[in-house]
Order: sequence, then structure tokens, then C-alpha cells
Amino acid sequence: MSDTPKQRDPERHAEKMAKKARAREKIMATKQIEKGLIIVNTGKGKGKSTAGFGMVLRALGHGMKVAVIQFIKGSRDIGEKKALQAFGDQVHFFACGEGFTWETQNIEKDRALAAKTWAEAEKALLPDSGFDMVMLDELNVVLKYGYLDLDEVMPALLARPAMQHVIITGRNAPEALVEHADLVTEMTLVKHPFRSGVKAQKGVEF
Amino acid sequence: MSDTPKQRDPERHAEKMAKKARAREKIMATKQIEKGLIIVNTGKGKGKSTAGFGMVLRALGHGMKVAVIQFIKGSRDIGEKKALQAFGDQVHFFACGEGFTWETQNIEKDRALAAKTWAEAEKALLPDSGFDMVMLDELNVVLKYGYLDLDEVMPALLARPAMQHVIITGRNAPEALVEHADLVTEMTLVKHPFRSGVKAQKGVEF
Repeated sequence: MSDTPKQRDPERHAEKMAKKARAREKIMATKQIEKGLIIVNTGKGKGKSTAGFGMVLRALGHGMKVAVIQFIKGSRDIGEKKALQAFGDQVHFFACGEGFTWETQNIEKDRALAAKTWAEAEKALLPDSGFDMVMLDELNVVLKYGYLDLDEVMPALLARPAMQHVIITGRNAPEALVEHADLVTEMTLVKHPFRSGVKAQKGVEF
Repeated sequence: MSDTPKQRDPERHAEKMAKKARAREKIMATKQIEKGLIIVNTGKGKGKSTAGFGMVLRALGHGMKVAVIQFIKGSRDIGEKKALQAFGDQVHFFACGEGFTWETQNIEKDRALAAKTWAEAEKALLPDSGFDMVMLDELNVVLKYGYLDLDEVMPALLARPAMQHVIITGRNAPEALVEHADLVTEMTLVKHPFRSGVKAQKGVEF
């Protein structure tokens, strides 16, 4: 491990930090492209949808228009849904209206729900939708379960407005999606309160 | 890999899903503890602060009172800051007001800023602060750099109100903090748009 500012004398610190700042400026200068990104949050850890909602919040702060389309969750997202109401027409929220997949026992119903939710997503991805950001929450799970086909999803994603950002969340992101994505983060569980008998709590889990 | 619902016949699917639901209910029934959690988002990937803000959004949706204390960032968090204004008095936002550490070259100034920001955090952690959730954004970085001492931080964290949740973000979470934490997630970078020359964009990076 390198030394920390604690151990470093002030002059050496100033020098080192100035060098870092110059290196950073140089790197930033090479980044000139602006485009709509495909952002994927995957992995077994927490924070995939939560980070998606954090990005939605940030976009709303900039006055951007956002669509949130939820493919799987339903009953547990009360907090986000209520909070987003503070932004009125700036945000469009659509939830498939069912709980987690493993709470349903009817495969045909699940497929029909996925198709209905996808139809809503397709509308948000259209050139004239007016959305600057679209969050497709838990889409990965629906793809993994085979309720939707990536061959159906990918063309709509690629044909979306050039500056529109799309956030896709859920475990098991398909490889073909990761290949097309610009920003991919894997959330890894290090420690979970369930293991100590703590129940799901307001504000944290829902 | 196990078969997906696509290949499975409806009856077997229903059976399998019912079994999953029962198993889940059984597990949930054992989780009875409610308490304020120490939540740590760390790792080199994106989404640490963003997931923190997503959790803040969720809490605000539930009518909870939230304090957001930013130890390092400043200029780049315009989106979140603006968006949180929609919630008025429900949220208290304090930023140390400086850019990233490597933009400053004065170690004494950095230390003084860290101390000032920590004083604000300490107030939010007091029993009578009235905050249901406190986000200490980038605290890990300040600890790592040695601008603040964990021995000073830990007692205040542990003495906070029993039901108050604390979210701590930043790379390199100290081991002693992880030990005391209830929920720890590591964000891992899989793919970043900077690598393809894409610059930081509104709504995504700031």
C-alpha cells in the first residue's frame, strides 16, 4: 500500500496531488463523445435497482424526462414510487403490477405480463417518446426466465433516440446485452443483514 | 444451468414456483429483528453513491427524514442536490464544498474540511437529531486518506439512535467498519464508457 497523506509531508503531498490533477485533466480531454448509454447493473448483490433509481433522481434534478418500467417487482417498491410522485409529469412510472416471479405459479400469465410490460417499454424507446432516460427494472430476470426474447428487445434498444440513456437492472444480464452495453457494474454481496435475522425494513429494502 | 420456464411444462412450473414461494415465506418468518443498519457501498465500480441516493429516495417516499453529508464531492453532484430540493425540509443536505481530493493541493485545508464535515455528521447521528437515515457520502475515502480517524468515527456511529440507518460510501471501506456493518455491497466495474472515449454526461455521471 502506498503512503497516505497522514504520513506524507505537506510539500510532497501538494506535488503529488498536482500531478494527479494534471493526469486527470489530460485523460478527460480525450473524452469528447456524447451519446445515450446502455447501462447495466447486474450481480447477486444489493443496489442494482437502487443505483438505477439514484441515477433517475439525478436525471430528474437536471430537468430530464424519465420513464421507469418495472418488469418484475411490484408490491415492494412503494418508497420509490411515492417519492417519484414529487416530480409530477417529469417521470412516467409503469409497473407490471405483480410480485416477484416466484410468487406466481402461472407461466402463461407471467409471459403475458412480460409482453404487456415490454410493449410499454417499446413505447418509451420510440424516437418521439420524449424520454431522456428509460429504466427497465429487472428486465434481465425476465430475459433469463425466457419470458421475453433478447432478439425482440435488442433491436428496439439499438433503434432508440441517440441521446437516450437506458438503465437495465437484474441478476444474470445476458452476455449479448453486456456486449452492447456501455457501462456495466456488478454488485457483489459482501454481507447481508438477513444472515443475522434482520427483516426487510422500510427505506432499506422497500 | 437449470431449465428455464421457457422449456418447462406449465404444471411443473407451477409446482416449482409454489415450492419456492413456501421456502421464501419460511425464511422470511425467521427474520424478525428491526434495527437501524450500517450500510456500506464500496468497491471500484460505479453506483456506490448512486445506490445510496436511491435508498435516500426510497426513504423520502416513506416520509422518513434524511440527512446527506458529503465528505468529498461537491461540484459534480448538482443533479442529486437539485432533485432533493423537491422534498423540502424532509432532507438536510450538507456538502464540504470542495471538489475531489486530488484537485486540492493543501493537506491541512483538506484535514480542516474533513473535520468540519465530520462535525456536521456527528450532529446528524445524535439521539435527538430526528433523522431516520444518514448518508455519509465518500466517508471511506476520507478515512483511507487519513483525514479522519476511524477511532473518532466509530463511537458516534455506534451511539446513534437505535432505528437510524447510516449509509457509508466510497472505495476502500476500512475493515473495522465492514466488521461493524450490517449490509456491505461491493460495486465492481465490468465495463466503463470512458474506455470508448465517452465523456461524463448529465444524468449519468453528475
